[in-house]
Amino acid sequence: MKLPVFEDVQQAHGRIKNFVHRTPVQTSESLNGILGGELFFKCENFQKVGAFKFRGASNAVLSLTDEEASKGVATHSSGNHAAALALAASNRGIKAIIVMPENAPEIKKAAVADYGAEIIYCKPTLQARETTLKKVVDRTGATFIHPYNNFNVIAGQGTAAIELLEDIPDLEFIMTPVGGGGLLSGTAIAAKALKKEIKVFAGEPEGADDAYHSLKSGRIIPSDNPKTIADGLLTSLGTLTYAVISKHVDEIITVSENNIIAAMRMIWERMKIIVEPSAAVPLAAVIEKPALFAGKRTGIILSGGNVDLGRLPF
Amino acid sequence: MKLPVFEDVQQAHGRIKNFVHRTPVQTSESLNGILGGELFFKCENFQKVGAFKFRGASNAVLSLTDEEASKGVATHSSGNHAAALALAASNRGIKAIIVMPENAPEIKKAAVADYGAEIIYCKPTLQARETTLKKVVDRTGATFIHPYNNFNVIAGQGTAAIELLEDIPDLEFIMTPVGGGGLLSGTAIAAKALKKEIKVFAGEPEGADDAYHSLKSGRIIPSDNPKTIADGLLTSLGTLTYAVISKHVDEIITVSENNIIAAMRMIWERMKIIVEPSAAVPLAAVIEKPALFAGKRTGIILSGGNVDLGRLPF
Repeated sequence: MKLPVFEDVQQAHGRIKNFVHRTPVQTSESLNGILGGELFFKCENFQKVGAFKFRGASNAVLSLTDEEASKGVATHSSGNHAAALALAASNRGIKAIIVMPENAPEIKKAAVADYGAEIIYCKPTLQARETTLKKVVDRTGATFIHPYNNFNVIAGQGTAAIELLEDIPDLEFIMTPVGGGGLLSGTAIAAKALKKEIKVFAGEPEGADDAYHSLKSGRIIPSDNPKTIADGLLTSLGTLTYAVISKHVDEIITVSENNIIAAMRMIWERMKIIVEPSAAVPLAAVIEKPALFAGKRTGIILSGGNVDLGRLPF
Repeated sequence: MKLPVFEDVQQAHGRIKNFVHRTPVQTSESLNGILGGELFFKCENFQKVGAFKFRGASNAVLSLTDEEASKGVATHSSGNHAAALALAASNRGIKAIIVMPENAPEIKKAAVADYGAEIIYCKPTLQARETTLKKVVDRTGATFIHPYNNFNVIAGQGTAAIELLEDIPDLEFIMTPVGGGGLLSGTAIAAKALKKEIKVFAGEPEGADDAYHSLKSGRIIPSDNPKTIADGLLTSLGTLTYAVISKHVDEIITVSENNIIAAMRMIWERMKIIVEPSAAVPLAAVIEKPALFAGKRTGIILSGGNVDLGRLPF
């Protein structure tokens, strides 16, 4: 199994940088005052499609040979990766086919369709998604772009950390949320290469804490029936992301649902920016472990800002 | 009656610039695509205390002589001006006394108290506010800083337009919301001086459309029982702001409540930033009059981002 290394992230950065936003790094004096450390937020909620996922999807699509590209790309997802892949494919002028559960929210279906992707509906089970996707790939020859357990996706996600460390070179910690582990893997590869002494942390919801248990046990232990408001983090680590994370990540900090909501509210109220619950998970980790972060300079990647305003937790 | 001129705004900028944030100008490809024009948003929702009001309050406080300053400042307000004056006074190390209606929301009371101001409660009527304030001023000698009908406040509010035009010099239109008219007055003075041919517009809620009627009639016609979700815009023009606005402003565009809510939602969903209803009123004007803004480069000052997340209109 070949793991991405820093050169892969650097090449990804060169490949995608004319397609993605260079998102700003924002700070909040009032949050720093409350929490007693210095926090630097890389705002991937302002990224195209509203999430970092567009980096990995763009790198994967732009890495295809012309022959591969001519057959299109496919994935199964009802979340940010679906919209990200749809837009990345549209930018290259190739076809994207997205397998979505038939009960996916209308707004997500509309977003993917707006970017010109073809949607194929399936029953809302993992098995139905996978069989439907396999049929699509067999029929069309499209390349399957996995949402996180994919070499080029991981390399693309690491590009946010390169930019964050360019803007704020003297970070002591860097932190992301962890679901499937694509963002965390890319971030860890880039950050440890750029700054050997930096510590890489991840926040993970208690209700979906497979990464925590997997790292503790030394083997992949998928979540069984995960449940959390951070709906981007329900997935479990894959083989690639597990291998990278177990090598490079210093600690996974699990957080309660209450602290996820408190952190999300704090970002909305103090920073006046919209983040989805998954994006608030690293700040929830700061709230859970104040002593660890006090007096430190911590970079946090705010993973996305796609929320249903009709269904807020406050 | 002496009206502020551009030199006053420039001096205000020099006076306050080490105290205020230079807020970013943000754009949204998807909003531009929907609306058919180019919009440039000056994000005063990211300003200290979450609103442009901190500019005017800072300028007023910093313009006091040492003797005046030693007696403190006072105002009546339950909104952003109260918090802004409290922080501006605290920055200069002087006392602020804020007269607030006893039924003001707890969160507003707490914000003002957090900045170290003294709060004096009164009955929730305009008359009670004014008599209570007069007593405070008579007793303490504090300088009354009116929320908008004040020379130095108007000059301070104009500094956002200087920054916006520095960042985006080739604007064709500039637009703010209008309530009491402080922001609109300062913006108009600065924009017309910097760029003679620029058009200055304001958005005003239909339910509080005194500026629209006053400009049409050629005299101040205060709103009678105004009602709008844009709670920062319930106030009516004052003598100073009326004089400036009738001289410099090209058009007041009234907007429906539905379009205010639609515009607010569009900013939240597309730009991933939090604005209060009042701040969404200029975008509501773009939605009301698409033909006017199509193909034009319009700067919009997003006035603030203080919302009660427990009482959202969507």
